[in-house]
Amino acid sequence: MKKIIDAVETIVDQALDGMVVAYPEYLQRVEGTLVLARSKPKETGKVGLVSGGGSGHEPAHGGYVGYGMLDAAVAGEVFTSPTPDQVYAGIKAADRGAGVLLVVKNYTGDVMNFDIARELADADGIATEVVLVNDDVAVQDSLYTTGRRGIAGTVFVHKIAGAAAEEGADLSSVKVIADTVVANLASMGCALTSCTVPANGKPTFELGANEMEMGIGIHGEPGIERVPMMSASELTASLYHRLVAELSLGDGERIAAMVNSMGATPAIELAIMSGHLANLTKSSKLSLEKVLMGEFMTSLEMAGASLTLLRLDQQRSTLLNAACDTPALKVVKH
Amino acid sequence: MKKIIDAVETIVDQALDGMVVAYPEYLQRVEGTLVLARSKPKETGKVGLVSGGGSGHEPAHGGYVGYGMLDAAVAGEVFTSPTPDQVYAGIKAADRGAGVLLVVKNYTGDVMNFDIARELADADGIATEVVLVNDDVAVQDSLYTTGRRGIAGTVFVHKIAGAAAEEGADLSSVKVIADTVVANLASMGCALTSCTVPANGKPTFELGANEMEMGIGIHGEPGIERVPMMSASELTASLYHRLVAELSLGDGERIAAMVNSMGATPAIELAIMSGHLANLTKSSKLSLEKVLMGEFMTSLEMAGASLTLLRLDQQRSTLLNAACDTPALKVVKH
Repeated sequence: MKKIIDAVETIVDQALDGMVVAYPEYLQRVEGTLVLARSKPKETGKVGLVSGGGSGHEPAHGGYVGYGMLDAAVAGEVFTSPTPDQVYAGIKAADRGAGVLLVVKNYTGDVMNFDIARELADADGIATEVVLVNDDVAVQDSLYTTGRRGIAGTVFVHKIAGAAAEEGADLSSVKVIADTVVANLASMGCALTSCTVPANGKPTFELGANEMEMGIGIHGEPGIERVPMMSASELTASLYHRLVAELSLGDGERIAAMVNSMGATPAIELAIMSGHLANLTKSSKLSLEKVLMGEFMTSLEMAGASLTLLRLDQQRSTLLNAACDTPALKVVKH
Repeated sequence: MKKIIDAVETIVDQALDGMVVAYPEYLQRVEGTLVLARSKPKETGKVGLVSGGGSGHEPAHGGYVGYGMLDAAVAGEVFTSPTPDQVYAGIKAADRGAGVLLVVKNYTGDVMNFDIARELADADGIATEVVLVNDDVAVQDSLYTTGRRGIAGTVFVHKIAGAAAEEGADLSSVKVIADTVVANLASMGCALTSCTVPANGKPTFELGANEMEMGIGIHGEPGIERVPMMSASELTASLYHRLVAELSLGDGERIAAMVNSMGATPAIELAIMSGHLANLTKSSKLSLEKVLMGEFMTSLEMAGASLTLLRLDQQRSTLLNAACDTPALKVVKH
């Protein structure tokens, strides 16, 4: 295993400190925890947004802490759910007296631990709501998950719910908006190579020299099928048509998309996919209003990509385009 | 070779179109060329900034086109210098009547082709200057280069010279500022794995299972030596001390740093390096004022990282922190 680390046991702790070194104007670490919170939080009255999950998916989620997105992000060990006490620390860091929305990707451990943390918050008088993200259309039930998994589309939830919270929406309104994002969201990924979880020391799975796995999970959980390598055109079309069908997208509808690297895939490959995506949406008579392209939800150094489509209405479009300023996603208004 | 592409011959052309799909508010492609230019250029009077080079180093350089940085970026084929006619097209796209500064990384082909393009521009009455970036302290003379190579530190030149140009500095002033950046800039990289150039179809070099190469070039050109894998602490210290010595940095001096992924290295590993960097600068009594952490100058899917240090004075610090808005680098003012 070749990684730029010191010891498996200290990776997450060190990485969180390093995030604060790189982004002091955005992030502070809540002392004694694995929580990154805004370094310049609003004083009062804003609904807090907290997300989190296992590490190894950077920039998720610490990279999305900042104006217009999250208030705090809770890290677990690599590919491991954060514990309830850590989530609770995140809730407390995000609480400004208007309640806290928890953005949880649908993995059994995450769901359970965020739920326990909600009980702790409830006992403290902090109102919470949960939005459960399950955008991965590849498989129903999987390793770690009952139902569909939550993957890269989660970033659209952060962005849109975060904008609503920043504008002063109350907790129930922010939850409704977040739920409508999830209801209009579909993602699917593929892997060209495995990643290596540091604690395991060897690749999670093996793929042949001309083989790829469609529908891969972001922890290397099994997808739908192993297929011979496709061209960028075939791959993009394959993912796209599946997502369009899942969302029942029809003529004239407005969408946003994310072309996400699983980690090792170079930007030029994502750009080639984005070009195909634009052509596919034209053929489908969909209006592609926004493309997020880059590393948004990675799986360590896995090679591969995921595609996410989000059906837009005017509200989601406005919130998606609202100003935000975080380490990993910035929308600048001039 | 596993890559999300359609054909080796069309990678760069398709990727440039895909960049415009993802960033239409920033970029337009100059028709019939491999040039990306600002989609909303200033009308007149601003010194133009043009950079370019072989593709495969994304986000360099198209990702740095936008307010406060470049006016145009010229792409070559993967790891291949852009041709003079393409550079000339970039100069014309960037020209607003106040002359154009060319930011050139020191590779023989780039230097030659940008020089020929300057002659074409001169014949057209467009004043140009060149800043030659040679921040890689690893080796003197190398494959493709006489003297030191230009690598990730180039992004600091884009940022600082770009801010000066945006503020209305004239061509000779922008050149002076860019030259002082180069004079105070040092970088060095390392590779844990090779990358595969699409046209070659196989890895450029091989490294053993416990081996890394120090001083690697961004095209996989040989570095200084192959060594057993180091810890993140040892690696960061090794790069750091070499750069501090090269720049003769002493007590109390102000620096900015870049912790750059060569492509496949996960963000948590960069964050661990950034943490060590902060500790090292404290021990050296240097004032670390800014860290750029992420993918700034990649080598396709190479695993590894580079470290860059830039000595700051008040002018460089102010320009580095000035607002900018490009696909790959944004400094937001509130």
